[in-house]
Amino acid sequence: MSSHLIDSLATTTELADVFSDRSLLQAMLDFEIALAQAEAAVGLIPRDAVAAIASSTIDGLDAVEIGRSARSTGTVSIGFVTALATQVRSRDSKSADFVHFGATSQDVADTAMALTLRRAVAILAAEHARLDGALRRLSDAHARTIMLGRTLLQPAPPVTFGLKVAGWVAALSRGWRGVDAAAADAIALQFGGAAGTLAALGERGPQVAPLLARNLGLPEAVPWHTQRDRLAAFVCASGVYVATLGKVARDVSLLMQHEVAEVAEPGGGSSAMPHKRNPAASAIVLAAANRTPGLVAAFLAGMVQEHERSAGGWHAEWPTVAHIVQATGSALAALADAASDLSVDVKQMRANIDLTNGTIFAERAMAFLLAPLGKKKAEGLIGEALAEARKGSMTFGAALSAIPEVVRVIDSDVLRRIDVPEDYLGAAELFRAQLLDEARR
Amino acid sequence: MSSHLIDSLATTTELADVFSDRSLLQAMLDFEIALAQAEAAVGLIPRDAVAAIASSTIDGLDAVEIGRSARSTGTVSIGFVTALATQVRSRDSKSADFVHFGATSQDVADTAMALTLRRAVAILAAEHARLDGALRRLSDAHARTIMLGRTLLQPAPPVTFGLKVAGWVAALSRGWRGVDAAAADAIALQFGGAAGTLAALGERGPQVAPLLARNLGLPEAVPWHTQRDRLAAFVCASGVYVATLGKVARDVSLLMQHEVAEVAEPGGGSSAMPHKRNPAASAIVLAAANRTPGLVAAFLAGMVQEHERSAGGWHAEWPTVAHIVQATGSALAALADAASDLSVDVKQMRANIDLTNGTIFAERAMAFLLAPLGKKKAEGLIGEALAEARKGSMTFGAALSAIPEVVRVIDSDVLRRIDVPEDYLGAAELFRAQLLDEARR
Amino acid sequence: MSSHLIDSLATTTELADVFSDRSLLQAMLDFEIALAQAEAAVGLIPRDAVAAIASSTIDGLDAVEIGRSARSTGTVSIGFVTALATQVRSRDSKSADFVHFGATSQDVADTAMALTLRRAVAILAAEHARLDGALRRLSDAHARTIMLGRTLLQPAPPVTFGLKVAGWVAALSRGWRGVDAAAADAIALQFGGAAGTLAALGERGPQVAPLLARNLGLPEAVPWHTQRDRLAAFVCASGVYVATLGKVARDVSLLMQHEVAEVAEPGGGSSAMPHKRNPAASAIVLAAANRTPGLVAAFLAGMVQEHERSAGGWHAEWPTVAHIVQATGSALAALADAASDLSVDVKQMRANIDLTNGTIFAERAMAFLLAPLGKKKAEGLIGEALAEARKGSMTFGAALSAIPEVVRVIDSDVLRRIDVPEDYLGAAELFRAQLLDEARR
Amino acid sequence: MSSHLIDSLATTTELADVFSDRSLLQAMLDFEIALAQAEAAVGLIPRDAVAAIASSTIDGLDAVEIGRSARSTGTVSIGFVTALATQVRSRDSKSADFVHFGATSQDVADTAMALTLRRAVAILAAEHARLDGALRRLSDAHARTIMLGRTLLQPAPPVTFGLKVAGWVAALSRGWRGVDAAAADAIALQFGGAAGTLAALGERGPQVAPLLARNLGLPEAVPWHTQRDRLAAFVCASGVYVATLGKVARDVSLLMQHEVAEVAEPGGGSSAMPHKRNPAASAIVLAAANRTPGLVAAFLAGMVQEHERSAGGWHAEWPTVAHIVQATGSALAALADAASDLSVDVKQMRANIDLTNGTIFAERAMAFLLAPLGKKKAEGLIGEALAEARKGSMTFGAALSAIPEVVRVIDSDVLRRIDVPEDYLGAAELFRAQLLDEARR
Repeated sequence: MSSHLIDSLATTTELADVFSDRSLLQAMLDFEIALAQAEAAVGLIPRDAVAAIASSTIDGLDAVEIGRSARSTGTVSIGFVTALATQVRSRDSKSADFVHFGATSQDVADTAMALTLRRAVAILAAEHARLDGALRRLSDAHARTIMLGRTLLQPAPPVTFGLKVAGWVAALSRGWRGVDAAAADAIALQFGGAAGTLAALGERGPQVAPLLARNLGLPEAVPWHTQRDRLAAFVCASGVYVATLGKVARDVSLLMQHEVAEVAEPGGGSSAMPHKRNPAASAIVLAAANRTPGLVAAFLAGMVQEHERSAGGWHAEWPTVAHIVQATGSALAALADAASDLSVDVKQMRANIDLTNGTIFAERAMAFLLAPLGKKKAEGLIGEALAEARKGSMTFGAALSAIPEVVRVIDSDVLRRIDVPEDYLGAAELFRAQLLDEARR
Repeated sequence: MSSHLIDSLATTTELADVFSDRSLLQAMLDFEIALAQAEAAVGLIPRDAVAAIASSTIDGLDAVEIGRSARSTGTVSIGFVTALATQVRSRDSKSADFVHFGATSQDVADTAMALTLRRAVAILAAEHARLDGALRRLSDAHARTIMLGRTLLQPAPPVTFGLKVAGWVAALSRGWRGVDAAAADAIALQFGGAAGTLAALGERGPQVAPLLARNLGLPEAVPWHTQRDRLAAFVCASGVYVATLGKVARDVSLLMQHEVAEVAEPGGGSSAMPHKRNPAASAIVLAAANRTPGLVAAFLAGMVQEHERSAGGWHAEWPTVAHIVQATGSALAALADAASDLSVDVKQMRANIDLTNGTIFAERAMAFLLAPLGKKKAEGLIGEALAEARKGSMTFGAALSAIPEVVRVIDSDVLRRIDVPEDYLGAAELFRAQLLDEARR
Repeated sequence: MSSHLIDSLATTTELADVFSDRSLLQAMLDFEIALAQAEAAVGLIPRDAVAAIASSTIDGLDAVEIGRSARSTGTVSIGFVTALATQVRSRDSKSADFVHFGATSQDVADTAMALTLRRAVAILAAEHARLDGALRRLSDAHARTIMLGRTLLQPAPPVTFGLKVAGWVAALSRGWRGVDAAAADAIALQFGGAAGTLAALGERGPQVAPLLARNLGLPEAVPWHTQRDRLAAFVCASGVYVATLGKVARDVSLLMQHEVAEVAEPGGGSSAMPHKRNPAASAIVLAAANRTPGLVAAFLAGMVQEHERSAGGWHAEWPTVAHIVQATGSALAALADAASDLSVDVKQMRANIDLTNGTIFAERAMAFLLAPLGKKKAEGLIGEALAEARKGSMTFGAALSAIPEVVRVIDSDVLRRIDVPEDYLGAAELFRAQLLDEARR
Repeated sequence: MSSHLIDSLATTTELADVFSDRSLLQAMLDFEIALAQAEAAVGLIPRDAVAAIASSTIDGLDAVEIGRSARSTGTVSIGFVTALATQVRSRDSKSADFVHFGATSQDVADTAMALTLRRAVAILAAEHARLDGALRRLSDAHARTIMLGRTLLQPAPPVTFGLKVAGWVAALSRGWRGVDAAAADAIALQFGGAAGTLAALGERGPQVAPLLARNLGLPEAVPWHTQRDRLAAFVCASGVYVATLGKVARDVSLLMQHEVAEVAEPGGGSSAMPHKRNPAASAIVLAAANRTPGLVAAFLAGMVQEHERSAGGWHAEWPTVAHIVQATGSALAALADAASDLSVDVKQMRANIDLTNGTIFAERAMAFLLAPLGKKKAEGLIGEALAEARKGSMTFGAALSAIPEVVRVIDSDVLRRIDVPEDYLGAAELFRAQLLDEARR
């Protein structure tokens, strides 16, 4: 029962594979094999059992049936262990008894999810690097490309496109470091047995965990059956990162409006309108950004887990984790593609500044007029010049230069260039360099 | 790339089928066939084209490829229409040109979702009826089964199990009516063409929509491309309904605790603990209840859709709608199963009342002592009796009966039975009847 | 400890007053007085007590102290009842004992919230009517004002501003009907006593509720202590309604961009930029739309309430309900103000259509060329004309008219006007009328 | 317009004060004074202006009026700056012109929130330390107190209360470290001027920021007007931390059920039921845990902020941040109180184990029988013993000891003590020590 259509914008081929049945079955099998090896190593189960268990494959395991069994047991683990034992039994009936020895359902399920997330995060990391590289190149290439600043969607004094992109880079870099660090904490062994004390393993319990962790290449952890905070922190970090991806996509889609036309994504056709070029990548990213806050809330809501194993909290996690990771990957891939091949129309950026007729430099004029004339007087004169500029017959700078009181107090060289964008970039390039540098660390 | 394991507790076989690729392809095909029929009927496309389009099947359509194409176009519709046209072209090259004539991507996608939801809601309706029936039977059977009321998880005056279940029935009934009514509003034709005016159809546009709606058995609607409020109301109603299912499951899981032991779900094994009987159905329901608030939020967040078609808001909807409907169905099925075969331990209910040693009747004593003695005096005497009862040597009733001031003011017949639960049920049966009656309407 | 700054964009003066301490104290007092009257009427408490209780005022009640007491008791009700009884006792010590007789904390708290919501909804209703009126006038005034349709923020075939506004009106109207209907269900008496059976009132319990409801002007309801679905439906309906307000505000803020400049809100200054006119109202509305999905989720998450009274679910509700209602009112007031005085630049709307150089009529050309030439051929010719038009030297219509194959198959009168927006509005006016009519019902 | 009743369970007196009007006015004033000092130091504004601005106080500022003004300007900053300038003007008309020189509304608003959060986090830190201390003492005191493990609310093999509490301590410690680290990142200066380039300050802009930061004791940051990821990470960390508080409260409230009766909070009266002792603190904590996931979602949803300043995203933040921080503090204070004075009934813990009649040791028996008898045979024999034990006439251990095949393969010393809880604690104490140690780092 595949759902490529429903999920078309919500995952990537690679990530859908990571969360597929085969992938999870393999991760669960990896746990059981590593467990048998560790337990045999300390003498808890017969050495023979290891060989019998380790020769198992997922090919004989029926995911449909195992999935269905979870509806009566509350977990896929029981059905999985039963199916695995049946497979082992067909080769060696005695060894089958030692499958999953001393472990509990949540041990295999949580560890399998940890192994799965490790694969997923590696994919995300590569995509983040691709996006980061593309955006850094864009920022460097446009260090001197001047464009309108825009606040509340209205024209503000100019910025550089390089600075805008550097702001994206820095926030994405912080966001990714958050995801990465949280993943390192969250991706850990789960192994506690029925009540989290490993009591069924007797005195040798504590020896098994380190071996098992080593076999799987996972960090050890004291059993964390109902303490989901590390996984939650990972889910949250993903949510923050996707929101920043969404901020970038919003900017891109706004700059891509026909009336603005400063950047353009590659691609994006329309079924009804042959003339169109849609921000399809931005739409995919924004779709993820619309979904993830709710997914984060869903995870957090399930964290209030009872005693040593919850009824309902843990059971809610898998879809949420799978969906948020895939949403992250889907957004990342779309934005990395778009960023790698974004068209930037430098002329149009300048034209949009010109369209304001210099009014965005009113703040600059105020900075020069304030001290000599006082605020009230300055506001009056600037207001006059703005009114002229809005009529469209002359620029704000020209209108200002026509006011004798202004001419008297502003140096003529400055006044002549009062509305030259290049002269009013402040610390744009300094901040750009700091942002990129900070993000590199 | 199936995900039976990730989704094992998040859907049912039936609902997973409804949201599967084949199901959606069929719904999209149904739209295109009905469209061709309607357009031919008013003379917009050649009659021949209808036959060629109507003989298409989903067998030749590759969901994987169509899904993948959405990543560059932002929608599965374009890939679908292309694939369908290719299929038609193989039979009749001219007719292929009239596939999807005058429609836009969102027309086919939204209408396909409407058709899909119609199937899903029918399944939910049947399950709701099954649950409703089981709970009504339970309420009737236990109209006189007395149990502890519990407030803030502490003992309160008694209720009947019949009343408690009737409260569930009434809330579920209101909840279902909400889902049903919202579905009736939300499940509607989408047909507006590129900008929602049907301009491409010329003067005959308005004639096509009613025919198309009739062909599909859907209500007509003025194009609602970026007005998602009806779908949102359906998603919200599902969220409210699932939350009520969750309330029932919480009650069941609490009553099923070993120390309480008043009810028991059928089934529920454990991988590590052969002695256990888990509330597996309740866990499934509570898992859904943990996830749905976030899913509702995800839908609402995507509603702020720009102009005539959004970039990102609409694109976020499909997974959310599919997940919430499947979560609803999963919870419903689990609870219907549990309710149909719930064990009720009437004796244990009484034993748990007895365990309070009558202290829950302190409120009743107050009602009798207040007028004759005043509140302060009454509180003192009741406090004395409670202290005795808490020591465990005698019941609250006995302790009270040993206080002369009490004996003086409470009628001896009443005092003797002051802590008889049957005498302190108030309007329990009246309310039970009202709740069931109200829910029947 | 007031918070006018934190809440400045999150409420209105009127609604802040409705949820203020004084307002809630009055509502709680109204409940207790009405309860005493009802209980005296059926002989449950002395007639004298009514007078003593009914002469109470909120002036002697210390909200700070009552609020603080809730931290040890879990509810403001206990502190309130104690304070009220103290006040009554100062006038008549015996009557004080009959304050709150037979009721439970949740009875007074829930009923007070119902009374509060009744006041709040009346305010919202008036604001909705104001907004609705303003938008209807706008739609009628601009029935023939042509503007670009915009899909995925890209130019699409034209619509009318009247149609766009009518889409807002209809969705807001549906949304408001949802709020109004849900409020009518949710605003109801709560009266069940300790365990929801009114047992403490003996046989006369069921007679009290109707009198109490009548005294308060509220509908009766079977006690609904842990069944929060009706309140949830109201919260959800508010969330849907706010999301639609957000959709309108997004449209307005996008149309108000300097490069688009089709509409303008009144007002909206800037501290740093004297030249600016900000979409301040839209920002307030969008702020509400950003917050409400999470608030809806918060309410839903608290609905899984245990047994006869929850520990934590009910306790979470008040802030959420208060915040969502105030967010709704804040957004409504801001949008009603903006809509009542929105500037519409009809010329600029036309100019932005012209800016597309006719390319948005490619779809129209296809409708005419498809049948005579076949899709492939038609796409080729349209592509040629689009390429010409994008160069900017001639319009799409002119470019098309220069292609002999096109001239041959499209009627010359039609071809001459192929890119005249007035000729390509389809059912815009029909749909506008239907939307306004549907919303009027 | 205070709301002590609505907020009674949603804040503490101390935190309500931190987010009050006076507190925010002071923080905004602190920014403006520090700004004037920094700007005068580099020669941007006259030295005289500093004295005039620095002698301002919040007493003359009208929070009601400033709050109201935000509805037309979209921010409290403009009204605040106007009011401050008026106050300065009354002392020195020229200096008033230099209030807020070169800064933008968001600079003062964001920095004021940073200063406010610094105060709030200090309060939370002290409460966390109090809670941590109380729980560590509890864990140490009950290192050997044996109680039922409980999974899916059903009996599992035993744990120690000390281990359970250590699990809480470790998770809360991780959670707090997360909050603390995120706060250190998020609490930073905002200073960028109109478009985030400090252009209005000319060449000396970059010199002002470090001085301003130093004056306020805040870390510098490149302007982050629309990059809200650090604040989001703080909000998320708070959400994770509150969820863990909620997990503890759920455990406490469940253990406090009358039928379980293993722990008891201090306090918690009832208005209707004199006999009750409610888990009032747990209810407050769980209320916060119900609300916070939605609040986190609300913040994340607002992060998609346009260009250099958003319309609606930023405007949504203040209430959400204020509510989540206050919810955190409310939950923390309640739980710290409860933990500091929690009653633990060690005997009842043992009695509840006994109530299982030894059946929770079935897993242990399996560990011994598996190797000698094989799983199938072992399951059969254990099943027999479980059946006997469930009848209640003998314990599981006794029943097992009566089966000859069992006696044959389990060492008699072991068999005799097969259901002695002390013998089946596994690594409980080891894990407890590790958890507390890990949390100490």
